[in-house]
Amino acid sequence: HTSKLPNVGTTIFTVMSQLAAKENAINLSQGFPNFPSDPKLIEMVQQALRENYNQYAPMPGAMILREAIAEKMEYLYQKKYCPETEVVVTVGATEAIYTIISAFVRPNDEVIIFTPAYDCYAPAVEVHGGKVVPIQLKGKEFEMDWNEVRSKINSKTKLMIINTPHNPSGTVLSKADMLELASILENTNIILLSDEVYEHIVFDGEKHQSAALFPKLAERTFITASFGKTFHNTGWRIGYCVAPKELMNEFKKVHQFNVFSVHHPTQIAIGKYLKIPENYLQLPAFFQEKRDFFLNAIKDSRFTWKPSQGTYFQVLSYEHITDELDTEFAKRLTREHKIASIPLSVFNTNKEDHKLLRFCFAKTEKTLADAAEILNKV
Amino acid sequence: HTSKLPNVGTTIFTVMSQLAAKENAINLSQGFPNFPSDPKLIEMVQQALRENYNQYAPMPGAMILREAIAEKMEYLYQKKYCPETEVVVTVGATEAIYTIISAFVRPNDEVIIFTPAYDCYAPAVEVHGGKVVPIQLKGKEFEMDWNEVRSKINSKTKLMIINTPHNPSGTVLSKADMLELASILENTNIILLSDEVYEHIVFDGEKHQSAALFPKLAERTFITASFGKTFHNTGWRIGYCVAPKELMNEFKKVHQFNVFSVHHPTQIAIGKYLKIPENYLQLPAFFQEKRDFFLNAIKDSRFTWKPSQGTYFQVLSYEHITDELDTEFAKRLTREHKIASIPLSVFNTNKEDHKLLRFCFAKTEKTLADAAEILNKV
Ligand SMILES: CSCCC(=O)C(=O)O
Ligand SMILES: CSCCC(=O)C(=O)O
Repeated sequence: HTSKLPNVGTTIFTVMSQLAAKENAINLSQGFPNFPSDPKLIEMVQQALRENYNQYAPMPGAMILREAIAEKMEYLYQKKYCPETEVVVTVGATEAIYTIISAFVRPNDEVIIFTPAYDCYAPAVEVHGGKVVPIQLKGKEFEMDWNEVRSKINSKTKLMIINTPHNPSGTVLSKADMLELASILENTNIILLSDEVYEHIVFDGEKHQSAALFPKLAERTFITASFGKTFHNTGWRIGYCVAPKELMNEFKKVHQFNVFSVHHPTQIAIGKYLKIPENYLQLPAFFQEKRDFFLNAIKDSRFTWKPSQGTYFQVLSYEHITDELDTEFAKRLTREHKIASIPLSVFNTNKEDHKLLRFCFAKTEKTLADAAEILNKV
Repeated sequence: HTSKLPNVGTTIFTVMSQLAAKENAINLSQGFPNFPSDPKLIEMVQQALRENYNQYAPMPGAMILREAIAEKMEYLYQKKYCPETEVVVTVGATEAIYTIISAFVRPNDEVIIFTPAYDCYAPAVEVHGGKVVPIQLKGKEFEMDWNEVRSKINSKTKLMIINTPHNPSGTVLSKADMLELASILENTNIILLSDEVYEHIVFDGEKHQSAALFPKLAERTFITASFGKTFHNTGWRIGYCVAPKELMNEFKKVHQFNVFSVHHPTQIAIGKYLKIPENYLQLPAFFQEKRDFFLNAIKDSRFTWKPSQGTYFQVLSYEHITDELDTEFAKRLTREHKIASIPLSVFNTNKEDHKLLRFCFAKTEKTLADAAEILNKV
């Protein structure tokens, strides 16, 4: 059987995490916290298990969670989504992304993505016979070239995928970017997929520019997000997506036959927890402290950087250290220095290599201090 | 945006469960237990939560669970699967089925299904541009016509989906059936998807004829199964699939970008629980008692039936009661008699209507007795 995805191997996150484990290295590669989530939330899942929320949740999600998501969207972005028809709980943001692509992309449809791009977009498009149209963010500062975007749009463009705050670069789109995007899409039929899994992790007093804030975008947009990132439980696989009803109707047709529904007791717990805004309002300060701690601790190293604007990732340049390929250097750092990171070139369709590595700082101060000590010696 | 699934609405299970709730009817439609799962298992999930298995499980599943699945397959069917490369934990059997189809079906590929068929197969094929080739099981006894199967196979046939024990009919394939199937597939390239979610629920001393028992089948087969059905927790969404390594490699490429991985603490708990064979060996007797109780309680009703051979569903014929369409009668029973079931015609591509309704008997004796009291009056 010839492969529908001949070029796909194991994702870089699994590759580097496995190497880290084998080499007994500090694992700052795959993005997940190494501190426990709120014991209150963990207890709430246990309570839901005891209260026997153990049979099928409703296909689009437990109502308490859909309502809490709608409330949060209104509270943060002044945008109303109907919990009945415009909110669906998914198996992490990943399932939401796959399901959107499955529901809309047909053979030869074009899908614009911005590279370096999170690695699940392109294979999902290819499985459905779509054509990935990559637009490279420019240079080490990952600048957006809106003129290039205009030039890549045509009648075959079905979908565009943006991601802000951006993984792996740690950049964010500005209000001006979002307005530009709205004007570019205005007279088209293009669906926007706005991957906002790091919506709560934006630094230096900036505000997350959700697509939900821009009515002309929101009317054509699926916003996807993830409680794994937000509440430090990547292993629970609860995310969601919101979209206008007409789009969501098509999404649900696929979601119901892809996974049917999502872990019920966890949904009940997150529903209750999300109703308390403090539980997410504290996140920017919480992660900014970690970013600042990490960058301060490596300030005398030979790495250079622009501070991350959002996400829990920091990109470091090693151009003053070596001119090895980033994939080689990432492996050598893991083997010889016992610290694992993610090389950025793997996220570029053209494998463009700017000598950049991504480090996850969703870690305890102890881990970050140990990591810094290593990096200072490289 | 034109729909990729213009004919798909909300699944019949959701429609009937919602109607049951609205009408305050006994809900024997959607298949799920109304008794709690083993408190020991629920406590094991709580323990895994407390022990902080809350970050990403490995993409193919927690090793303890993959090992337990492989052990169970060897114990029951004397077939070795490698936990490293031939077992993947999925979001219920549903995600396994969708992912298999996504990984292998290309536009114009043909996929043979047997109708009445569980309703997730056909839309998944259609989303990927494949062509569903339905083969109708014959009459009220749902007989398999292997000559018709032979005649429907051609060079475009990519996949065949069987389901034993069979939902919705409650029939099972015999050893002779499986041998016939093996001989039919022998000189083809066809992949077999064997949906065995009710593997532990076979009655009257019969033995489940898993595809794993037949080496010539197993070498081309994905077997999918579900712990929701087995351990009475349909809301936890943990299933799995097993297949030879070469097939599984392609499966994993899609699984990792579809959902990445599955609820980690629940996997840990089920892994431990599955290691104790008694936990599944008791199931046939447990459900046979329910089937027998239910059938005995309605023996004076005007419904007629052949006892279910497997699954936790019983099909009842109402041909001596009315000649209404089954979809109409199922709704009227829910509204007027306060008992919800599933009409069988919706699972037939040609909507063939044999005046049959499916009732779920995975219910407490109290519920079954109440249901019988109603059915005796119809
Ligand atoms: C699904 S593993 C990848 C986790 C993640 O989001 C990242 O490291 O970028
Ligand atoms: C996913 S809801 C359907 C449950 C079920 O398997 C059935 O009722 O047949």
